[in-house]
Amino acid sequence: MVFKYPNGHPNHYDDGLPPKKQINKKEINFANRGMRFEEAINQSNQYYLTHGLAVVHKKPIPIQIVKVDYPRRSAAVIKEAYFKEASTTDYNGVYQGHYLDFEAKETKNKTSFPFKNFHDHQIKHMEECLQQKGLCFVLLWFSTLKRCFFLDGEQLIFYWKQQKKNNRASLPLKVIEKCAIEITPKVAPRIPYLTAVNTYLQTKE
Amino acid sequence: MVFKYPNGHPNHYDDGLPPKKQINKKEINFANRGMRFEEAINQSNQYYLTHGLAVVHKKPIPIQIVKVDYPRRSAAVIKEAYFKEASTTDYNGVYQGHYLDFEAKETKNKTSFPFKNFHDHQIKHMEECLQQKGLCFVLLWFSTLKRCFFLDGEQLIFYWKQQKKNNRASLPLKVIEKCAIEITPKVAPRIPYLTAVNTYLQTKE
Repeated sequence: MVFKYPNGHPNHYDDGLPPKKQINKKEINFANRGMRFEEAINQSNQYYLTHGLAVVHKKPIPIQIVKVDYPRRSAAVIKEAYFKEASTTDYNGVYQGHYLDFEAKETKNKTSFPFKNFHDHQIKHMEECLQQKGLCFVLLWFSTLKRCFFLDGEQLIFYWKQQKKNNRASLPLKVIEKCAIEITPKVAPRIPYLTAVNTYLQTKE
Repeated sequence: MVFKYPNGHPNHYDDGLPPKKQINKKEINFANRGMRFEEAINQSNQYYLTHGLAVVHKKPIPIQIVKVDYPRRSAAVIKEAYFKEASTTDYNGVYQGHYLDFEAKETKNKTSFPFKNFHDHQIKHMEECLQQKGLCFVLLWFSTLKRCFFLDGEQLIFYWKQQKKNNRASLPLKVIEKCAIEITPKVAPRIPYLTAVNTYLQTKE
């Protein structure tokens, strides 16, 4: 079974809303609809997969299962389980021979992105992937500003290490504007991050 | 928190067994110790990660969480959850710029590998990854024979489609011996599958 995310595609409604709703431009922006950034990424991944453009999946939440019941004539029920800390990032996959590995993070802040959104194990995992020539990045969403950025792993790690030294709590938007690639949200895919990946790959050539 | 698998490394015991045990050669073979194939793969991944050779992780089991309790002063407890069907393969990662994607399967059979070990969604996922120039394969373990094979995705898909036509229930060992790359289990990593990956990459050049 696959999770169905709240239907955000304007041309396809399951809830029987009148067609008039479909041309309300405000509906198109996922931020206005209260859709979380992660869900917009999941929809974009689905779009890329369906169109044969990339294979990227969100990893399941790691869980330690302690007790499972097997009731008669029905599916197994997990009765006791605990959340485990992830040892990797949330998303990975393949795009035209490139290994992609990334996290999607959002903030309500308007002038900077808090470093507390990133965890040591994520940074460590990115370092390991970069060593193997993987393409690592983070997608940063400023929900109040409705702006999205692609920040590559090398730069994230650089600023991450700098903040540890300098005790800075966040990465200023002004820095992000300079060193990251801005992504303009669209209808489909909602977050066209492969465009930023292409731009990044061109700068590496 | 990370799962600790039963300690299979002969030079490092947590269970306080006397050193004499450590040189018992039979202990080295994970099959003799009742260690499951998947655990041997997980240990191999850990070895590759620690030695900076590849970054490959097993994906968590996909679960649909229905009810979570938050008891005071302790961790959240999942009280009701269900297993979901995976939409991908179990393992993926990056190795020297290559996207790796694979499944690990075992059989007690001695003369053939049953196709029922593979599911439609896994085959579909492999087709999608191959289209994106990912390196897909399966690791086949004949537990009775103690023989391990690397079978690349293209060939698996070819035989998978053939069996659907011809109603064959399994892939004969004789075919596997011809078209797959045999992997000799070792002490560390227990299943040195990167050796087979290298051999495969050489044939593709």
